[in-house]
Amino acid sequence: MAETRNPKPAAKAPDSTRRSERSRRAIYEAALSLVGEVGYTRTTIEGIAARAGVGKQTIYRWWPSKAAVLLEAFLDLGEQAAEAAGAEGGEYEIPDTGDLAADLKTVLRATVDELLDPKYEAPSRALTAAGIVDPALGAEFVEKLLEPSLQLYVNRLRAAQEAGDVRTGIDPRIALELLVAPLAHRWLLRTLPLTHEYADAVVDYALGGLAPR
Amino acid sequence: MAETRNPKPAAKAPDSTRRSERSRRAIYEAALSLVGEVGYTRTTIEGIAARAGVGKQTIYRWWPSKAAVLLEAFLDLGEQAAEAAGAEGGEYEIPDTGDLAADLKTVLRATVDELLDPKYEAPSRALTAAGIVDPALGAEFVEKLLEPSLQLYVNRLRAAQEAGDVRTGIDPRIALELLVAPLAHRWLLRTLPLTHEYADAVVDYALGGLAPR
Repeated sequence: MAETRNPKPAAKAPDSTRRSERSRRAIYEAALSLVGEVGYTRTTIEGIAARAGVGKQTIYRWWPSKAAVLLEAFLDLGEQAAEAAGAEGGEYEIPDTGDLAADLKTVLRATVDELLDPKYEAPSRALTAAGIVDPALGAEFVEKLLEPSLQLYVNRLRAAQEAGDVRTGIDPRIALELLVAPLAHRWLLRTLPLTHEYADAVVDYALGGLAPR
Repeated sequence: MAETRNPKPAAKAPDSTRRSERSRRAIYEAALSLVGEVGYTRTTIEGIAARAGVGKQTIYRWWPSKAAVLLEAFLDLGEQAAEAAGAEGGEYEIPDTGDLAADLKTVLRATVDELLDPKYEAPSRALTAAGIVDPALGAEFVEKLLEPSLQLYVNRLRAAQEAGDVRTGIDPRIALELLVAPLAHRWLLRTLPLTHEYADAVVDYALGGLAPR
């Protein structure tokens, strides 16, 4: 989403750049906390500006809408998480140790932790709920946030297919849904506890199949 | 949810019973259409009463809250769908023809049709979205609507396990999530089209497993 972000003001003094960076971070944090507290509908640019301690014109200069601010705040949160996990420049991919089950368990356990992270959970629920009833917001959410992360599964499953660890004929874009959807389902609907053990079971069931071998 | 519904007024004249039944149906329809149009938060008992052409005291006499009206309206919709499908007294169970894959495809294809039914889709999205951000409503939704329908899968998968069509050691309550969660995920997040072909693929992948046999 670099196109909606203010280009680095190369001509300005370092002080100004640092100030911009600080404002940007304050705006992200304000947007995420606010949407988690009052929901998407009642979150406003004015409210975000007030909480971030910036003028609302600062926000309008950098982003066209509150949806854009929020989506970018989430992207930034994801990049921070990836950097914290040691991924190169915030880029993330699913590990390939040659053991597909172990690699999927690693990434799905990390997903469980992320979904239950208090910093992430309330705003993420609010944004998901808003997208469920607002098709335009939902489409942006899927295109910019969800689908790129699902593509990582496509890549890993395709590599597994080439290595002979996934049956030929399996469509990786469908197969990944048997892995990620059960976790999303428990998280969104709170049917039963979302745990590492559950993530492991989902991987084992999906790879091994429910039918006898 | 018979406990929140007005008991059949046995002592009253048939005319009054018919009138009550007509009001009850009008209230369900008003509640479902309204929540689909304006969302859960902005749906009120007053609004439902006005659209149904009844006094709001009529609604308060029969239901303790708008959540109760809506949950019961959904239960009724499900019962109607089951009756239309020929199920005994609105009771529904997953068919057991002895062919597990075929039976699961039958029920998941029907689920696809139901999720995409215009009468169902908007109110169901609104209620699901509301439950995602409101834990108390979500819990009621799961307990009264979702979990009973998931139990049907537990029953069918347990029968399949006894018939040797599902591996021993598989927990049916987890296994069913590999079947229903992918459909819910596509439906809620609108990632890709929700079709009968997709439902079939989910069944084949879940039963056969992604790994080579």
